[in-house]
Amino acid sequence: MALQTPIEYDQASPVVRAVYDDIMATRKTDWVNNFWKVLAHHPETLQRIWSNVKQVMSNGTLDPLTKELIYVAVSITNNCGYCIASHTAGAKAKGMTDEQLGEVLAVIGLANETNRLAIGYGVPIDERYLPS
Amino acid sequence: MALQTPIEYDQASPVVRAVYDDIMATRKTDWVNNFWKVLAHHPETLQRIWSNVKQVMSNGTLDPLTKELIYVAVSITNNCGYCIASHTAGAKAKGMTDEQLGEVLAVIGLANETNRLAIGYGVPIDERYLPS
Amino acid sequence: MALQTPIEYDQASPVVRAVYDDIMATRKTDWVNNFWKVLAHHPETLQRIWSNVKQVMSNGTLDPLTKELIYVAVSITNNCGYCIASHTAGAKAKGMTDEQLGEVLAVIGLANETNRLAIGYGVPIDERYLPS
Amino acid sequence: MALQTPIEYDQASPVVRAVYDDIMATRKTDWVNNFWKVLAHHPETLQRIWSNVKQVMSNGTLDPLTKELIYVAVSITNNCGYCIASHTAGAKAKGMTDEQLGEVLAVIGLANETNRLAIGYGVPIDERYLPS
Amino acid sequence: MALQTPIEYDQASPVVRAVYDDIMATRKTDWVNNFWKVLAHHPETLQRIWSNVKQVMSNGTLDPLTKELIYVAVSITNNCGYCIASHTAGAKAKGMTDEQLGEVLAVIGLANETNRLAIGYGVPIDERYLPS
Amino acid sequence: MALQTPIEYDQASPVVRAVYDDIMATRKTDWVNNFWKVLAHHPETLQRIWSNVKQVMSNGTLDPLTKELIYVAVSITNNCGYCIASHTAGAKAKGMTDEQLGEVLAVIGLANETNRLAIGYGVPIDERYLPS
Repeated sequence: MALQTPIEYDQASPVVRAVYDDIMATRKTDWVNNFWKVLAHHPETLQRIWSNVKQVMSNGTLDPLTKELIYVAVSITNNCGYCIASHTAGAKAKGMTDEQLGEVLAVIGLANETNRLAIGYGVPIDERYLPS
Repeated sequence: MALQTPIEYDQASPVVRAVYDDIMATRKTDWVNNFWKVLAHHPETLQRIWSNVKQVMSNGTLDPLTKELIYVAVSITNNCGYCIASHTAGAKAKGMTDEQLGEVLAVIGLANETNRLAIGYGVPIDERYLPS
Repeated sequence: MALQTPIEYDQASPVVRAVYDDIMATRKTDWVNNFWKVLAHHPETLQRIWSNVKQVMSNGTLDPLTKELIYVAVSITNNCGYCIASHTAGAKAKGMTDEQLGEVLAVIGLANETNRLAIGYGVPIDERYLPS
Repeated sequence: MALQTPIEYDQASPVVRAVYDDIMATRKTDWVNNFWKVLAHHPETLQRIWSNVKQVMSNGTLDPLTKELIYVAVSITNNCGYCIASHTAGAKAKGMTDEQLGEVLAVIGLANETNRLAIGYGVPIDERYLPS
Repeated sequence: MALQTPIEYDQASPVVRAVYDDIMATRKTDWVNNFWKVLAHHPETLQRIWSNVKQVMSNGTLDPLTKELIYVAVSITNNCGYCIASHTAGAKAKGMTDEQLGEVLAVIGLANETNRLAIGYGVPIDERYLPS
Repeated sequence: MALQTPIEYDQASPVVRAVYDDIMATRKTDWVNNFWKVLAHHPETLQRIWSNVKQVMSNGTLDPLTKELIYVAVSITNNCGYCIASHTAGAKAKGMTDEQLGEVLAVIGLANETNRLAIGYGVPIDERYLPS
């Protein structure tokens, strides 16, 4: 259910186009996905979120595929359909195999189960897990 | 808040002790954490969950650290205090640096933000994300 | 996916019609939205929830638009598609502008991010936030 | 459960101190709350999140109290204890009365109930809620 | 972390005392638990929620223990510590055995796992599950 | 949105067929629902989850209908559309009446409301709810 329809490049303001251009240049592609075209209804949010994504997802000591898998884990736990589709596609583009996808989903499922067992039983935190 | 107190090795039944022994042997340690000692109140659950964790977390095409990071991502999104403490400790034991922890948390935080933006705006899924 | 189809006025029992009539009279409209028409499958729930909504949403020291925005914030965080659509429409009917919608979504997104950072880092509550 | 202890001003690096200084100047206070002192373990996150909070929470067409109430609504729905304490304190500092707090909590509670009724019954979205 | 301290019977207004009296009379006990003593800070909410609980939990075609177990399932999934403690105690008072508690937690854990597998894989709903 | 299409019996490997056969034999039916046909993309997960479901849902001191209602409560709280449809159908097949469904949904809705009130007010746990 779309509250807002995507804003295509031709309809976009110069501020929005500049973000679209930077997305395509950064990703080395000629395509912008709907997430950004919908955020374009509030240009400050479009600029702010793109700036955050570029900073958080691009550089660092974790490889890009691991970051995508964490994104998939959060998105499935939150039940965000769009995010599951886009970040699963992103992980495949970064080299995730079908076997790896199966393992990712198995870990996500099991973590959601043991989370509730720990919560339901009220397991006390072990001393050695506490900061010294 | 503990609904059930941990069952120590000395108090445990032979069935429970066998699981504790297997946990320590598999992990090459002389220590069992509270999660298992509380599950011991329902031995079928203790056996079943340990069997699942051994299968899902041990072997595969994803390295063990990546699996721990996915566990951390799910546990933070679900707000499970015990799970965050134990799996962060697990990730550190598998080599996670402080810098990597900072990046993991940054990705988890950002994913939770963009999940709600995608949900709130009702972003339609792009055609190329759909299975062909 | 509808588990139950909406019950239209013509098909409704006198008890259900009385609630529909009160909804339309209270809202000064000739229209009842599907939420109530589906709750009508369990008339006690229809009566109870309508009575709660009338009490909580109508009177008070907070203005009606602020209450709608809180409803939108909860609905997006819970990922309830129907509720997002209906309460966004409700907020617009009460005067919310497109710019305000953009800001509401920005706050909701950011709050979901900082919630997970506070949870993930296990930030201790400052003394001055505790009740004296 | 603190994974990381707060970093006090005296222990902080120049980069972290600069953010603390900006927080205090922006808020016209001589105090920094623990959230920022813990984020300081990853200075990029500290800078990024403070920059986001300043942009999203400060200016706009919604008044600051309304933004705080939306933050409270998200934080309660996500069960973030630190966030509930800090943003309830923030709302009080911006003028929220005890009666208003009672109403905010009533709306949040009811929204969480009707969200699940809409989800559980699978209520179909009314035509007039869809974008034309 | 208590935002509001419980209001004891001696300190309570006549309106609040009347609800406390009805809680004790309905439950055939001389004791009121903290949930109600904290809601007493907003007497309209105290009255409204008690009226809802009395209606929903007392009568019906489901037995009271089954209703408590559903409450426990929701509370664990939402990670509400107070609610887990109080409704587990309520279920025990209604006859739940330790073995039954073990089974309840096992079902809750497994449901949380399979929920994420169904969401993550995007399983299409079978025709025969749809309303005819 | 299906990430993976269901694998039909004719296309399935012998390992997958063996699970399908066991599902049909255990349930005394000639039909396998899509959940299993999609898990079949990762045969280890298919075998593991079916083994868990058989153990957790089949035997015990709780009757099968109560277990299905707990599954429905978790699925609605998590907003898993597929799970709501399949476990509501499962509960109906085990004898749930329309009136009982209405009561189940009322309890789930109310529990989600009171969960947030307990969390938002930070209700302290009563001494007598703590383990002695």
